Amino acid sequence: VSEPGKSRRRKFWGWGWQDEGADAAQLSALEAGVKALLEIGDLKPLAAPEPEQIVLRAPRVTAPATLATKLSIDHYERLAHCYGKSYRDVVRALRRDFANPPDLVAFPESAADIAAIFDFCADANLAVIPYGGGSSVCGGVEPEIGESYAGSVSLDLGRMQRVLEIDPISRAARIQAGTFGPALEEQLRPHGLSLRHFPQSFEFSTLGGWIATRSGGHFATLYTHIDELVEALTVVTPRGVIETRRLPGDGAGPSAERLFIGSEGALGVIVEAWMRVFGRPTYRASASARYASFADGARALRAIAQSGLHPSNCRLLDPMEAMLNGAGGGDHAVLLIGFESDDHPLDAWLGRALELCRDHGGEVPETSIRSHADQQGARDGAAGAWRSAFLRAPYLRDALVARGIFVETFETACTWNRFAELHGAVTLAATRAARDSGAGKCVVTCRVTHAYADGAAPYFTVICRARDGDELTQWTQIKSAVTLAMLEAGGTVTHHHAVGRDLRPYYERQRPDGFALALSAAKAALDPAGILNPGVLLAPRARVSTPC
Amino acid sequence: VSEPGKSRRRKFWGWGWQDEGADAAQLSALEAGVKALLEIGDLKPLAAPEPEQIVLRAPRVTAPATLATKLSIDHYERLAHCYGKSYRDVVRALRRDFANPPDLVAFPESAADIAAIFDFCADANLAVIPYGGGSSVCGGVEPEIGESYAGSVSLDLGRMQRVLEIDPISRAARIQAGTFGPALEEQLRPHGLSLRHFPQSFEFSTLGGWIATRSGGHFATLYTHIDELVEALTVVTPRGVIETRRLPGDGAGPSAERLFIGSEGALGVIVEAWMRVFGRPTYRASASARYASFADGARALRAIAQSGLHPSNCRLLDPMEAMLNGAGGGDHAVLLIGFESDDHPLDAWLGRALELCRDHGGEVPETSIRSHADQQGARDGAAGAWRSAFLRAPYLRDALVARGIFVETFETACTWNRFAELHGAVTLAATRAARDSGAGKCVVTCRVTHAYADGAAPYFTVICRARDGDELTQWTQIKSAVTLAMLEAGGTVTHHHAVGRDLRPYYERQRPDGFALALSAAKAALDPAGILNPGVLLAPRARVSTPC
Repeated sequence: VSEPGKSRRRKFWGWGWQDEGADAAQLSALEAGVKALLEIGDLKPLAAPEPEQIVLRAPRVTAPATLATKLSIDHYERLAHCYGKSYRDVVRALRRDFANPPDLVAFPESAADIAAIFDFCADANLAVIPYGGGSSVCGGVEPEIGESYAGSVSLDLGRMQRVLEIDPISRAARIQAGTFGPALEEQLRPHGLSLRHFPQSFEFSTLGGWIATRSGGHFATLYTHIDELVEALTVVTPRGVIETRRLPGDGAGPSAERLFIGSEGALGVIVEAWMRVFGRPTYRASASARYASFADGARALRAIAQSGLHPSNCRLLDPMEAMLNGAGGGDHAVLLIGFESDDHPLDAWLGRALELCRDHGGEVPETSIRSHADQQGARDGAAGAWRSAFLRAPYLRDALVARGIFVETFETACTWNRFAELHGAVTLAATRAARDSGAGKCVVTCRVTHAYADGAAPYFTVICRARDGDELTQWTQIKSAVTLAMLEAGGTVTHHHAVGRDLRPYYERQRPDGFALALSAAKAALDPAGILNPGVLLAPRARVSTPC
Repeated sequence: VSEPGKSRRRKFWGWGWQDEGADAAQLSALEAGVKALLEIGDLKPLAAPEPEQIVLRAPRVTAPATLATKLSIDHYERLAHCYGKSYRDVVRALRRDFANPPDLVAFPESAADIAAIFDFCADANLAVIPYGGGSSVCGGVEPEIGESYAGSVSLDLGRMQRVLEIDPISRAARIQAGTFGPALEEQLRPHGLSLRHFPQSFEFSTLGGWIATRSGGHFATLYTHIDELVEALTVVTPRGVIETRRLPGDGAGPSAERLFIGSEGALGVIVEAWMRVFGRPTYRASASARYASFADGARALRAIAQSGLHPSNCRLLDPMEAMLNGAGGGDHAVLLIGFESDDHPLDAWLGRALELCRDHGGEVPETSIRSHADQQGARDGAAGAWRSAFLRAPYLRDALVARGIFVETFETACTWNRFAELHGAVTLAATRAARDSGAGKCVVTCRVTHAYADGAAPYFTVICRARDGDELTQWTQIKSAVTLAMLEAGGTVTHHHAVGRDLRPYYERQRPDGFALALSAAKAALDPAGILNPGVLLAPRARVSTPC
């Protein structure tokens, strides 16, 4: 989370930098807004926890001398590696519940370090939890590993943050997996290149985490997941290092990369990757369109997704989502469209997209249409307002949670033929579950974050009053109701947030049994001692195994 | 190959329909052409074999009564299921070498039939060889299974050729795996849809084969492999049926589909798939550009591949390749560019592509520029000539093989930074190996079939005189030299022809050991008796196993 010597620390209990968050005026506006939205009275904020308020269980294991500089028992580091950044995580942190910390936090500097840590952990029967940037919202980095381990080690690649090599001819870069978004872009920028993968967690998540969780990024079409941007991977497993060949395309057997993309640290630890990068865009063209209803906007979105125009931005906000993000007045849905290129002007592209917008009943304000030939482009207007709100949202989420508000997001994807049904079913399930939990008024908003020719990825935000002191039970009720509704309507349990521990029971309903067999067998082959992130994707082993 | 009752039969010994091939005039031109090209004298064609000339080893196993209508011992069927369509296959067939036929040929009609066949084969210790359309050029469908099986069954899905369901809203179709290209397109056409996957084998290959081998199709960029078009799969394994969920995008664990895409029948048999389909194009725009050299053309190709324009056609032919395919005079390389859309005119797209062509020294004949708004489009001109030659090529290949000419293709992919080196190394390796084999003059041509922002897929054709009666040794020498040169220069052993049995030793050098462990473990989990296509991707089991 913060290496010794780094001046700026991240919060150990919630989103972002310790010294950053909503200011007094923003908090006041936020409070007023949520009180009006949910029709509730005064809010009593919980104070943020301080490290010295928390007594952690003593480490149950001692680092060997050979790894002394790589394994830490620092109080702050152990605190900061207890949780990811989900609603549940923030609630537990605010309640000062840090009952299950990792025993050690590892800061390897190389693949060899990781191999040595694996050996130590296999010998000592310790689980290894790859931490990435710690922005997991699905229990992916929490040492909740069952009863069969002697302890746990959180593995933090924070000392592996370099872009190691750039191949400008092939537009690719070899990058260490511990590199955070901003550091990655900073190192590519002098070469005129960019990975252009901007998940909401961008500032606080790493390349390795993106790959391990099939992160969804900036591109609303075509390169929706990090998957498509991976050219080659280096993965350390307990059975050795796997280094795949740099290839632009391949037909030799099943894709080795795709087995590790989305493996959530259960099959190995990604240490570096050759990534496909892009020229930094010099042309941008964007606009927004208003629709009387979300369903109308969805029809336009489908037409654009099936047009072959491949906009980089193509996001549909329902009326409430648009209003909350400063992109609309609450009486209409908003479709944001944007194209970008480092090669050519985009007028023909945007022109046709706007024809499609209008053909499907959209009103395109002339003032929303922008076309630039520079590095700034569509940073203002509705798209700019939305982007800014997007990156600030997690800070505000934490402020709401501290004020006793339940704020959770649910994201999925489904084919177009089931889209309307899924949207309705999820909205209903969330509203009902919130009501059943005694939350009173519940607001469910939806935006579509990624669009495909054959379907789309809707992203729901559910806001209601939290059940004071019983937030986790309430969360379980709502999470379960919504996720089951998604599955029932043909969706996936996650389009780009990963499975982790929270969604595993639901993932098991979605995943074909035969694929579970294959995946378990692959894990047993690569991780025979079962030390890697037990409990994500697959159930943790049931019994105590003897050290081998 | 041909079900009882079907009037038109495919050749059992070579490419295509029994009643189709080069006519006398074409053969005469072909002979004159190859004699001039290789500077050789008279050619003595081997006669095509007739079924009654071949005595096959008697079936070593008897079909159980319950499967009597699904398992055939028909002489013609067993003959036709001995080989794929590689150079080696045709040579052996012309030499009347059918020493190792499948004992039975299975024609299942459902997933349940396949499960019953698996049970029978596991009990009787028989290998199951999924046949697809039989167009394998890598030994993927040959019952060369080692010594540990009591026999083999070739599995032909020729009775499973239907488009079962169409979802026009999501632009997807559920299609049986045994469906051949033409039948597939014929069933989609009335709905205004097309899969637009046109490998050279299109007429004689199946959807299941395409998916199992990561086939490369029509699209030169973006949707280069069938992989991207697969929405969901149904796979029968000895441990049960795996049916993945229809999703446009997903982030729940590693992709289940991607484990089976490219699995070459070693993990299961694909029985149906939901495929992403396209609206039939109404707009087309195309042109060709001439370059003084292949290297010049490659620079233009790279610029286009990195432009974000995503042409559907974008193929570079070296001067000899262009001449042999009627697309050039032999003194210049030719870059074919084509865009297509069912949504919008493509002038802006083609316009920018041609700027790039010219910026990189290309000469674009005005007569080559075509823009259409109809269903026909760019069927004439250089692109049309090339396309026609492309589909006829396998028939001519067989005629050359019968005349004692070695004709083999080698395809790979590599990143742009190694492209020139690989092109040179492969050309040199092929030329040297042919010379060392005593073949005299050898012609090596190259075209680039698929292009990516980070690299390209070159496709080499090697033509020289075959070593009479010792063709297979010569083939091994040349194949080995070329494939090792590809690997050495950073390429893959196959971009879209699959690994099969022929390339397995080379694939093993390319595949990381750890991935081999995972793949073997997955196979053992899904196919515990090891009956599925032993010898492709993974070595066949070494010892006789007792029936279980």
